[in-house]
Amino acid sequence: MKNILITLSFLLIACATPKKEKAPPAPLPSWANTQVKENILDYIKVITDPKNPDFIPVEDRIATFDNDGTIWAEKPVVQGLFAIERAKEMGMKVSPRPSEKEFLKIVLKTHTGMTDEAFEKEVKEFFDTALHPTYKVPIDQTVYQPQLELMQLLKDHGFTIYISSGGTIEFMRTFSQRLYQIPGERVIGSNFAYAFEPKTNQLNRLQKFEFNNDKEKKPIGIQRNIGKRPVIACGNVGNEGDVQMLRYSQGSKYRSLQLLVNHDDGAREFVYGEPKNTSLNWAQQYKWNVISMKKDWLKVFPDKKEAVE
Amino acid sequence: MKNILITLSFLLIACATPKKEKAPPAPLPSWANTQVKENILDYIKVITDPKNPDFIPVEDRIATFDNDGTIWAEKPVVQGLFAIERAKEMGMKVSPRPSEKEFLKIVLKTHTGMTDEAFEKEVKEFFDTALHPTYKVPIDQTVYQPQLELMQLLKDHGFTIYISSGGTIEFMRTFSQRLYQIPGERVIGSNFAYAFEPKTNQLNRLQKFEFNNDKEKKPIGIQRNIGKRPVIACGNVGNEGDVQMLRYSQGSKYRSLQLLVNHDDGAREFVYGEPKNTSLNWAQQYKWNVISMKKDWLKVFPDKKEAVE
Repeated sequence: MKNILITLSFLLIACATPKKEKAPPAPLPSWANTQVKENILDYIKVITDPKNPDFIPVEDRIATFDNDGTIWAEKPVVQGLFAIERAKEMGMKVSPRPSEKEFLKIVLKTHTGMTDEAFEKEVKEFFDTALHPTYKVPIDQTVYQPQLELMQLLKDHGFTIYISSGGTIEFMRTFSQRLYQIPGERVIGSNFAYAFEPKTNQLNRLQKFEFNNDKEKKPIGIQRNIGKRPVIACGNVGNEGDVQMLRYSQGSKYRSLQLLVNHDDGAREFVYGEPKNTSLNWAQQYKWNVISMKKDWLKVFPDKKEAVE
Repeated sequence: MKNILITLSFLLIACATPKKEKAPPAPLPSWANTQVKENILDYIKVITDPKNPDFIPVEDRIATFDNDGTIWAEKPVVQGLFAIERAKEMGMKVSPRPSEKEFLKIVLKTHTGMTDEAFEKEVKEFFDTALHPTYKVPIDQTVYQPQLELMQLLKDHGFTIYISSGGTIEFMRTFSQRLYQIPGERVIGSNFAYAFEPKTNQLNRLQKFEFNNDKEKKPIGIQRNIGKRPVIACGNVGNEGDVQMLRYSQGSKYRSLQLLVNHDDGAREFVYGEPKNTSLNWAQQYKWNVISMKKDWLKVFPDKKEAVE
């Protein structure tokens, strides 16, 4: 009896003694300790604090991220690369530098006229085999590591993340879960016109666009799919495509955060801007956070994975 | 020491003895024990059983419900009633039996040209004050109690419920959470054309419809907002509006369930059908479950609430 009690006592003491906790890892490890990072972390701290007047209830913590050039590389735009590769596979004649008219024809032919299942299979094969023309790595590895960390940090703090992209929804939904852990129903994008065929029970994509989720249309896609203004919006400098979305988030009744990725890193990625400097002008006028890839990111892409046998 | 051990032993025995559990309440209490109810319960049982070949993973348990005539009464259509009441308030001349053209004008004038906040306020006032013309109760009390129970039961079994309605999204999102516990981002509906105004940061509704989420358009709204076929679809006989949605759900790779509410209960609700009997014909052809309000529902509306002081 005495032995049992001594053993029990030791166990109790062992359980009751607080373990020396390891400090949690610092957030956003691929981000340099710059003002932008501080603004992000401060924003999260404030809006998650129930005692703070800027507290945002979880159901209103909506963040929208553009895709191309914002959370993965867009030189070239991956969906365009897919269309061209697929067109060649299909035996189509593809000019080295297709005109806009030819390119549209290529996109329509490679994205319509097949079932969802067949299309998904073709996209999967592309992602399994294609290499980025410059980096010579699988496309999956051209996502931006700092952005993956940012999205995860937001999710850890109760945010619901949506993609709002000019890419088409059927294309993006093949990888949004795999690359970003964003399920298909939180992907807002462009779409072709559709026609429903009850006999075959197919929802067929027609050879014309119905909605181009870009520029001033982004708030519309957000209104239709979500019905709330995001409180965080993240886009990029490149083709003026995100300024309305970022502006729209600023109209929230809550304190909001706008982030604009600037492609100024010639050593690790691509340097490009806009002829009229629109996005950076809006960022200055409306006081958005401009992310300098060169200065604010310690790393651009994820570490290379071991080749899978 | 001995006393301590005896006490501990009693505690251990008390904890270890299984408590006699109260039987859980029978599901769907407002549904009569008919074949339809059995089909619903059997379906849920099968698709939630991991050992069953028809098991559906939680992320694919999507259910879409129409609104008018399916989960609340539609005689009259509530959004139309709102439009007419609001038009009168605004001083518009409203004929006793407006033509389609006049009605469209009324809808456009009462739904566009104001901010989201102003619109929501007007809708709230309507719901706070309006009485159903026949039942003389607040509109909130014209929801179908059996359907509330069905949707709750599905949620309890891992389903995600969407509304897919011809009503406009801004209108429905004012009450979807309150009445059905369905958040705004799971409301698929019709919408006006929009124009974004960066200076005022307003997404303005224009005086024309852009998308009418009805009939063959319902699968399109589902594809844009969700990107998966529902495995359960529920609509009603009335204006042929749900047959494509129900058919679309039947094309799922999973075992699916189609439910069609038939308004055959003259004693407790309204009897109405379709000139060409389209919905019931499709139901017969494609073997859907037809819900007879008269026979399958023990109760139509929720019990009357006490008047709030």
